[in-house]
Amino acid sequence: MRKVYVIGAAATPIGEHWKLSLRELAVRALLTAIRDAGIDKRDVEALYVGNMSSGSLQGQEHLGALVATWAGLAGVAAFKVEAACASGGAAVHQAFLSVASGIYDCVAVVGVEKMTDAIPFDVTASLMMAEDQEYVAFTGTTFVGLNAMVYREYMRRYGVEQEDVARFAVHCHKMAVANPYAQFRREVSLEEVVNSPLIADPIRLLECAPVGDGAASLVLCSEDYLKRDPRDELIEVLASTAATDILSVHERPDLTTLNATRRALEKAVKQAKIEIGDVDVLEVHDAFTILGVVTLEDLGYAKRGEGWRLVKEGEVEPGGRIPTNTLGGLKARGHPVGATGVYQVFDLIKQLRGEAGENQVEGAELGLAQNLGGVGGTAIIHILRRVR
Amino acid sequence: MRKVYVIGAAATPIGEHWKLSLRELAVRALLTAIRDAGIDKRDVEALYVGNMSSGSLQGQEHLGALVATWAGLAGVAAFKVEAACASGGAAVHQAFLSVASGIYDCVAVVGVEKMTDAIPFDVTASLMMAEDQEYVAFTGTTFVGLNAMVYREYMRRYGVEQEDVARFAVHCHKMAVANPYAQFRREVSLEEVVNSPLIADPIRLLECAPVGDGAASLVLCSEDYLKRDPRDELIEVLASTAATDILSVHERPDLTTLNATRRALEKAVKQAKIEIGDVDVLEVHDAFTILGVVTLEDLGYAKRGEGWRLVKEGEVEPGGRIPTNTLGGLKARGHPVGATGVYQVFDLIKQLRGEAGENQVEGAELGLAQNLGGVGGTAIIHILRRVR
Repeated sequence: MRKVYVIGAAATPIGEHWKLSLRELAVRALLTAIRDAGIDKRDVEALYVGNMSSGSLQGQEHLGALVATWAGLAGVAAFKVEAACASGGAAVHQAFLSVASGIYDCVAVVGVEKMTDAIPFDVTASLMMAEDQEYVAFTGTTFVGLNAMVYREYMRRYGVEQEDVARFAVHCHKMAVANPYAQFRREVSLEEVVNSPLIADPIRLLECAPVGDGAASLVLCSEDYLKRDPRDELIEVLASTAATDILSVHERPDLTTLNATRRALEKAVKQAKIEIGDVDVLEVHDAFTILGVVTLEDLGYAKRGEGWRLVKEGEVEPGGRIPTNTLGGLKARGHPVGATGVYQVFDLIKQLRGEAGENQVEGAELGLAQNLGGVGGTAIIHILRRVR
Repeated sequence: MRKVYVIGAAATPIGEHWKLSLRELAVRALLTAIRDAGIDKRDVEALYVGNMSSGSLQGQEHLGALVATWAGLAGVAAFKVEAACASGGAAVHQAFLSVASGIYDCVAVVGVEKMTDAIPFDVTASLMMAEDQEYVAFTGTTFVGLNAMVYREYMRRYGVEQEDVARFAVHCHKMAVANPYAQFRREVSLEEVVNSPLIADPIRLLECAPVGDGAASLVLCSEDYLKRDPRDELIEVLASTAATDILSVHERPDLTTLNATRRALEKAVKQAKIEIGDVDVLEVHDAFTILGVVTLEDLGYAKRGEGWRLVKEGEVEPGGRIPTNTLGGLKARGHPVGATGVYQVFDLIKQLRGEAGENQVEGAELGLAQNLGGVGGTAIIHILRRVR
């Protein structure tokens, strides 16, 4: 395989963009990423759109050709890639493969989701399409409900208090304050989190990633492309891996660990030839606080049942052992579902470029992002290194 | 890039499968393709699901993890790829890139669509998601209506009679009789076609590909994989290319040619290092008769305005100059939207393996399939060669 580099990255702030349509969000992020890369947009040969719900929320498919057309890129190869909440990461993975293959030299990715304009479906029903419609959704459960099962079992098995899990949200909100792209740039206290309305016992409102609109975009290229257009600063995609687990939570032998994360990680550290302890900055898929905590364990940063300790002891903050979600994570930066995996890579890039402002991790060179689809039915892992 | 081979292929018959769900169709085709490849299913490292409408017709996304789980493949990397009616071809393209990249050695593709069970949407509204929802669909036009514009302009510009275009359907139905996987295994006369009910002037019912359910599947592998598991018979994917055009028909400078096809073709003949005249057997995306005729021109088999002559003169039949849709094409084999691009490759493989029965093209070694999304918003081309 050929080496793959990221030379451009951009995003829209996440929020309720009532005046921007799905395509406008996507085109804005995409053209800004192309400008950030400093390339002629005619160099882009393929476009990968990561999106989960445009069919059910906007009545719109064929996003590849749609976004290409509106970005003035009609002609390029273009596709939509879907893997539920991991659609963004999956799109980056396909873009990575397409450059690694030697077929494409310069490829763009855009992750986009518009959740405020939900025409035929409501957002909760649409999100539930990530789980098994015939055997699970019909019971009336929601994604919050499924994650609540994981949460409840985690507390029972390891004798952990809700405060210890819920603290993950406090951390993310603290990190988001300095991030101009974040949906919620304000701190919340642990008291506020555990006293916020109950959504699905034990999950509280402030433990859930919000609904929002946004688009993030990357430009990837090959070494051959760089020979024609060399760079002073450069980030390499050291690893891009994906794995699945049994789709439905209730069919898994263990609720409190996500096999898909562990499988994707095993492949990723091998591909990148790194140790997990080498990572300077981490992005985890905290759609709910419990997923953030479990992921810290699945990635090997804590023993099982002890991921929450890293948060309690401040080890996830810049300067700590493993700075995590340093720009707010899903909880506070926001979680426009199919865009999230791309936002995670965008946030890593800000750290690796030294552009993370107040939350900068000093000397950050190696970053890892973990993106989940469903309750861990899919996991995508990316490892990036600043090479100069 | 590494060379890519197809070692397994299978499909379900296309029809109204009231007793088989989306996942059952997909799993049936997938496991049969794995058996056809003669491999242990644990060798499969990634799964690409080509599908357009599961979100709007079944309320189900996350098909990668869903199909992987139900096929007993949970753990593999798995994704849904969408490019409207070219979703199947797009999934094959991603699978091709993933093997070419060197990351995956053995990959499965399944194209699947279930159009008879349409829960939240009707099929016509769902298909219209391939066009621009905000600027085109709201006018009330349908896909038949858009293709009717192409048809009308083609007849006007080139002084062609409807009979000459409509004959494409007669050909496809004749070819389907011998295909046990075809939805309509019966001949229709030209009189029946041009006197069938008018759908969108001038398009008649029997000029439209039908609505149906089906799944087709392929197993692709690398040369490294073949070293461990050598084969007496082998088909290579010589080229896999994709291109887009301006999404909406009314914004294009010329209605009667599909730029996406021409762009994908240009890349494909270069990648495969062939001349278009070398092709022994052809699959074209005849969602409507007019698209079959225009495609024969866009691929260079006829001058513009004269594609219909190849049909009239019998050149598209086995034994003719360019045997086309020899197992029935979209019109009579069927068109389960997101599966179609995979069915086309499946049909080519039957010819290249010498398993096309009565319609066998003697000595067929080189095949080309063209898959369209929307009215040519996307085009995917695959070129396959029997190498032994």
